[in-house]
Amino acid sequence: MAAKTKTLAELSAMVGGELQGDPGLIIHRLTDLSSARAGEISFLVKAAGRESLKNSRASAFVVPQTINFDEKPLIKVANPYLAAARIQTFFQAKPFRAEGINPTARISSNCEIPAEVSIGPFVALGNRVKLGKRVTLHPGVIIGDDVVIGEDALLHGNVTVYHSCTIGARVIIHSGAVIGSDGFGFATDENGCHVKWPHIGTVQIDDDVEIGAGVTVERATFGKTHIMQGARLGNLVQVGHNVTIGANSIIVAQAGIAGSSSLGRNVVLGGQVGIKDHIHLDDGSMVAAKSGVHSDLAKDSKVAGYPAIPLRDWLKASAIYAKLPEFYGELFDMRRKIAAVYKKLFPEEGRK
Amino acid sequence: MAAKTKTLAELSAMVGGELQGDPGLIIHRLTDLSSARAGEISFLVKAAGRESLKNSRASAFVVPQTINFDEKPLIKVANPYLAAARIQTFFQAKPFRAEGINPTARISSNCEIPAEVSIGPFVALGNRVKLGKRVTLHPGVIIGDDVVIGEDALLHGNVTVYHSCTIGARVIIHSGAVIGSDGFGFATDENGCHVKWPHIGTVQIDDDVEIGAGVTVERATFGKTHIMQGARLGNLVQVGHNVTIGANSIIVAQAGIAGSSSLGRNVVLGGQVGIKDHIHLDDGSMVAAKSGVHSDLAKDSKVAGYPAIPLRDWLKASAIYAKLPEFYGELFDMRRKIAAVYKKLFPEEGRK
Amino acid sequence: MAAKTKTLAELSAMVGGELQGDPGLIIHRLTDLSSARAGEISFLVKAAGRESLKNSRASAFVVPQTINFDEKPLIKVANPYLAAARIQTFFQAKPFRAEGINPTARISSNCEIPAEVSIGPFVALGNRVKLGKRVTLHPGVIIGDDVVIGEDALLHGNVTVYHSCTIGARVIIHSGAVIGSDGFGFATDENGCHVKWPHIGTVQIDDDVEIGAGVTVERATFGKTHIMQGARLGNLVQVGHNVTIGANSIIVAQAGIAGSSSLGRNVVLGGQVGIKDHIHLDDGSMVAAKSGVHSDLAKDSKVAGYPAIPLRDWLKASAIYAKLPEFYGELFDMRRKIAAVYKKLFPEEGRK
Repeated sequence: MAAKTKTLAELSAMVGGELQGDPGLIIHRLTDLSSARAGEISFLVKAAGRESLKNSRASAFVVPQTINFDEKPLIKVANPYLAAARIQTFFQAKPFRAEGINPTARISSNCEIPAEVSIGPFVALGNRVKLGKRVTLHPGVIIGDDVVIGEDALLHGNVTVYHSCTIGARVIIHSGAVIGSDGFGFATDENGCHVKWPHIGTVQIDDDVEIGAGVTVERATFGKTHIMQGARLGNLVQVGHNVTIGANSIIVAQAGIAGSSSLGRNVVLGGQVGIKDHIHLDDGSMVAAKSGVHSDLAKDSKVAGYPAIPLRDWLKASAIYAKLPEFYGELFDMRRKIAAVYKKLFPEEGRK
Repeated sequence: MAAKTKTLAELSAMVGGELQGDPGLIIHRLTDLSSARAGEISFLVKAAGRESLKNSRASAFVVPQTINFDEKPLIKVANPYLAAARIQTFFQAKPFRAEGINPTARISSNCEIPAEVSIGPFVALGNRVKLGKRVTLHPGVIIGDDVVIGEDALLHGNVTVYHSCTIGARVIIHSGAVIGSDGFGFATDENGCHVKWPHIGTVQIDDDVEIGAGVTVERATFGKTHIMQGARLGNLVQVGHNVTIGANSIIVAQAGIAGSSSLGRNVVLGGQVGIKDHIHLDDGSMVAAKSGVHSDLAKDSKVAGYPAIPLRDWLKASAIYAKLPEFYGELFDMRRKIAAVYKKLFPEEGRK
Repeated sequence: MAAKTKTLAELSAMVGGELQGDPGLIIHRLTDLSSARAGEISFLVKAAGRESLKNSRASAFVVPQTINFDEKPLIKVANPYLAAARIQTFFQAKPFRAEGINPTARISSNCEIPAEVSIGPFVALGNRVKLGKRVTLHPGVIIGDDVVIGEDALLHGNVTVYHSCTIGARVIIHSGAVIGSDGFGFATDENGCHVKWPHIGTVQIDDDVEIGAGVTVERATFGKTHIMQGARLGNLVQVGHNVTIGANSIIVAQAGIAGSSSLGRNVVLGGQVGIKDHIHLDDGSMVAAKSGVHSDLAKDSKVAGYPAIPLRDWLKASAIYAKLPEFYGELFDMRRKIAAVYKKLFPEEGRK
């Protein structure tokens, strides 16, 4: 295929940068510093890495505004990582090509499917499924009854969506993810046996969400489990029934959120974090990797540990944790000395 | 479809409740307090939430026995959550409708399949598979050779069952789960290379078990990995080879149990718990979320932390953990003072 | 099928053992001590378990060199577990039987597929896929464009491999695993919205790797995510973009490795371990289960805890952790006594 090209001036305008060097230089690709070649642009995230520009064969660089480097053309921006992501998005974006419905796919009754879709082999759609324009369903995707999927959504191979879930526009769901399986809810009888709670709620995934491979999202007991616009879920994340994840929140791989908890906007959960049921993490709160949160978090709080405490305290406490054995020995030594002192100064208290 | 209906008297009898109010009131649905409407019943789990009854539009409520509320009919029970689950089960239960074998499904040789089953598109059965009556296999289910599945079992889309596993009656397995993959076992040679142990055992899942989405259950090295009657496994749980999970045990999402460990009856593992290999957790033991258990647990023990200690101790210890920095400063201060005291009282020990 | 048989002399030679007893004894199976019967061989891993030989009905045993036991023939070896694995591999190995391409499988354009392969029902191959001889793809395997799979590789049901990944010879991938999904990378703009980084790198899995059920391996931002020869990944492991896992490393179930970190040879990560991004764990380092590693590890280091510290220190510190409440009480008591001592000895410092 013919590669796309842009002049440096065009790329600089695309990212609102300050151009330094030949505006007409033609660029056809963005890659990392070490593998870039002539005709390609690369990028430097932090000013501290300035030396690596010298060894790169790229023809131009996206750099922080503070960088001075006269040997190659530069696009200076406030956030080079963001600018590079936008340039890469331009170079890598492929126009949607409708491949239609593969003859092996099984479409049940009363579905609404526009002409411009790509539905791969062995896709099974239930009844009354409604797809937006330019939806792509890779091979082995299984969709239950009454599911609605928005325009330009992309579901990779072997994704499963249970009945009645709603998936927004431009949503990306990676392979192996399961949306809308039953919530983990049951009542226990007098004999210790569990009676399953039928989950009559659904899952709603808003526009522009990306969901990682192997993620599981439970449907609600009543109402809905709700993942709001622009949220990003890493691989193997577990989302319990009736959870709400606010807009643009980031849930790193293998984190889990128990039933009925809610996250505000731009919350960040590190990898392998666990969130207790029925709590609220307010906008902008951040939880360090592997932490366990047992109670509500205020806006913009930063916590770590299990149970989670303020990050600042945790950093100190965990550093001291390693010194507990030394601590312990000292405590015994001090006890001995205090006893000796006491015996001498307060002989009458010797029996206390 | 015509909704089911019951009179309040019938519902009360169904759950062994004490009816207060119009026995002939007709109810067609159960839902939560906030979304309930006329003709529907809702429920209150704890007496403390009594005020919320006033704002609900439900026509009747299932409530704890201590509740007094004269404005609407009540069904009073000892365990409202259990009673509501039973009522919901009644309203939501759908009679099995045999859809037969989808023409795209692939059935290998010598399978035993009763007439009343529902086998969806792209289901693949190995040789000698034996299904009970009213088994439902959703699209994309893959079943290996010699698997036996009991009556009324339901396997959701994209479940995989390896050869020779046994699945009981009424078992539910959610999408993406993998039953019977090889145990993680190998021997390491003198060069540090690993020789795979062929796993010739199987997996046995007893009646009434429910297995969450993305769960993985390893087959045994010899013998069997065994999940006993009524156990519940949340999403993304890992069950190692030769593990036994006792009847009615509850394993919350993302927990993992290493090879050859055994759980008794009604054991509860919180989310993201890890259980070491070759240990035994006796009946009724409970492990708090995110804990790691390294040794046997006695009957009805409650533990938390990593490594897990009695819950009571852990609650205290973890509260103090946050105060370690303060502790540390104090220890230094005390050391200084004790040294000063010693110098004055025991000058002859000054060099110790 | 006719079972394979070997004489005891042949088995002993196969594992380089010292034979004691009838060399012509015919053995047709290896199993564990408790289920073994006549004609079968079993094995004892540790000398301490010698008593269990007496109760086993096996006709012969593989044992440590120090064992004396005259009642049955023995094969004495330095590493009985390894020897038994090799014998079991012999007995269980089945010759590859090419079943060809199932008529339901979908093969796209320009694939290279040798005659001796087994491709099951509902397998979908993208364009330009290249398979080695004796590759087995179980039902529901989905392979993207430009994937290369080496000789004798085995992909179990419902595995998904994204485009352009490379899989070596004799690799085994268990069901539900996802290879090559997009890395979890994005840049955040001034409004808190995330711009997805298109991941143009790939995944390379070298020869003899085994990957567990439900594992997720992200493709690289640039370059490749690389799993080197002989590595073993347990179930539900997460491998971030641009990670390198060295030869013969062992990653136990539910562990996660964040982006751009690298592991040397023969590294061992316990279950549920988390590894921070951009760090290096050198050859032979071992991380105890559930630990979180935040910084580089030197060769052969052994660490535990979160954040991980040397295993030896962690064992002591975690034992003391449980005693923190006792500690705390003692500290208060000591403070009181020191204050009393001070008051008496240094009355002039009373206000400090």
